[in-house]
Amino acid sequence: MKVLVTGGAGFIGTHLVRKLLERDIEVVCVDNFTLGKSANVEIFKANPKYKFYELNIEDTETFCQTLAAEKIDMVYHLAANSDIQKGGKNPSIDLNNTFMTTYSVLELMRRQDIKKLFFSSTSAIYGDRQELLTENLGGLKPISYYGSAKYASEGFISSYTHMNDLATVIFRFPNVIGPNLTHGVIYDFVNKLKENPRELTILGDGTQTKPYLYVLDLVDAILTFTLDRPMATGLEIYNVGVESATNVTTIANIICEELGLHDVKYNYTGGNIGWKGDVPRFQYDLSKIHQAGWTAAHTSDESVRETARNIKEQL
Amino acid sequence: MKVLVTGGAGFIGTHLVRKLLERDIEVVCVDNFTLGKSANVEIFKANPKYKFYELNIEDTETFCQTLAAEKIDMVYHLAANSDIQKGGKNPSIDLNNTFMTTYSVLELMRRQDIKKLFFSSTSAIYGDRQELLTENLGGLKPISYYGSAKYASEGFISSYTHMNDLATVIFRFPNVIGPNLTHGVIYDFVNKLKENPRELTILGDGTQTKPYLYVLDLVDAILTFTLDRPMATGLEIYNVGVESATNVTTIANIICEELGLHDVKYNYTGGNIGWKGDVPRFQYDLSKIHQAGWTAAHTSDESVRETARNIKEQL
Repeated sequence: MKVLVTGGAGFIGTHLVRKLLERDIEVVCVDNFTLGKSANVEIFKANPKYKFYELNIEDTETFCQTLAAEKIDMVYHLAANSDIQKGGKNPSIDLNNTFMTTYSVLELMRRQDIKKLFFSSTSAIYGDRQELLTENLGGLKPISYYGSAKYASEGFISSYTHMNDLATVIFRFPNVIGPNLTHGVIYDFVNKLKENPRELTILGDGTQTKPYLYVLDLVDAILTFTLDRPMATGLEIYNVGVESATNVTTIANIICEELGLHDVKYNYTGGNIGWKGDVPRFQYDLSKIHQAGWTAAHTSDESVRETARNIKEQL
Repeated sequence: MKVLVTGGAGFIGTHLVRKLLERDIEVVCVDNFTLGKSANVEIFKANPKYKFYELNIEDTETFCQTLAAEKIDMVYHLAANSDIQKGGKNPSIDLNNTFMTTYSVLELMRRQDIKKLFFSSTSAIYGDRQELLTENLGGLKPISYYGSAKYASEGFISSYTHMNDLATVIFRFPNVIGPNLTHGVIYDFVNKLKENPRELTILGDGTQTKPYLYVLDLVDAILTFTLDRPMATGLEIYNVGVESATNVTTIANIICEELGLHDVKYNYTGGNIGWKGDVPRFQYDLSKIHQAGWTAAHTSDESVRETARNIKEQL
């Protein structure tokens, strides 16, 4: 079996590629190193089952032509801009890196008759909602360009799945953290504290509360629903995450503990959102994926602590 | 007041432009004549309040640069591929003509600080569903590339509305018919019967049933919710249509009556859908738009009959 992993040099992609190679699956990896890192690719290059292409996936024709000769059985489409805040300043980032990469992947699949797809969607497609987020919640109004680019991707995946008889699994990711994190609140806090271990600026009022999923738990879920179990023709969508959640002040506390810092002064910028387009809090209904037999091994707080330790080791 | 109408040389756009000019509103019209017709533009050219640009809207930079000097107050975004069946053979048609035109319009609005938007969405975003279609129905899975391009457009409109404080009204159109129709079942039937008035080939089994809205009723609704009433900041979505619906065999019967044809032999191709990606039947929940004080003047059957008469006059 040969699979294509887009965004395979990125944070989540690297962990997925490693686990796939451990299972003796041939991996074709594509990345353009916008967020992905060449160091992540180097570690696999000696493996004869691994092949890497440096490509802008959003250039549909080049992407399809370059990969036409590969006999790919399945695509794990992870390539995207995952930095919501950055995309908020320039919508073309999410148009190209998040949406158009999906369109290119779907065109490759249509033209090469590839039938299996895994897609990394996001809680951001739900917009800013108070209620428990079930997969079939209606009236969705994404508020970030990132959220709408993933929403748009889901829409195109839906019609391509119907028109071309694909077997598709979509996971809607929450915040995902762990080794090799490239950005986000934990990454920022550790780096800020490295600069100045006495004070920490916290965007908002510290009460923004989100579920943090440990990346190795996520990769376990992906492999469970795409390899360990047969994929059925049609589109299946799951929220993936943890029941628990962690607020921003707790994240700061855990990081300070792990770094051995005491009496750090927190300076809150105020307000209840970090930036425009940010969803300050949400809670998933996880009953669908739980009933399907999967739960995360780490709680949200445990994921944060584990990640803080990982980053500390890399300092 | 100056408004931009995209797709203003098209079937619905032409009717909207005429009504706007009748209200003494300045109209800037953009079309690339893919489905729009130059004859539709000619009739307005003598009007000093009318200005026309022939442009591919999906070319975002050219579109934004060309319109930068116009002081536009509001956009009616109608430009799209409206031929679902044609798009089914080549997904790039709906990517470019239906989705990317929306992205370009949103970028123009963001860059030029235009705050009011009307968008023509569609029943196709709901996918193939048995239940009554309410605006907040969840778990939407569009099955045609057209449906997903409109779904994707709605997603981007949602985030642009939030990020840029727009006042946006989205109507989800059903099948819209009336004078100047460019394609679709009525258009096809009249043209087939002109060729051969003894026999008529009908795709499917004739039971596909859809609500048909008369174009002048639709334009009345658009003007009601965008001009007669103030538009509030935020995103408001309405199903627009008629409670009644007409099946394909009834359409054939009405057309034959209006053309004065008797004993026409109907040849059904069989099956319950016309083509892959077609939604054979749907029914809107129209309570939201009705409670807001608008109802269509024509029933679905009346719209079909009125349209058959219009086309007959043009023969």
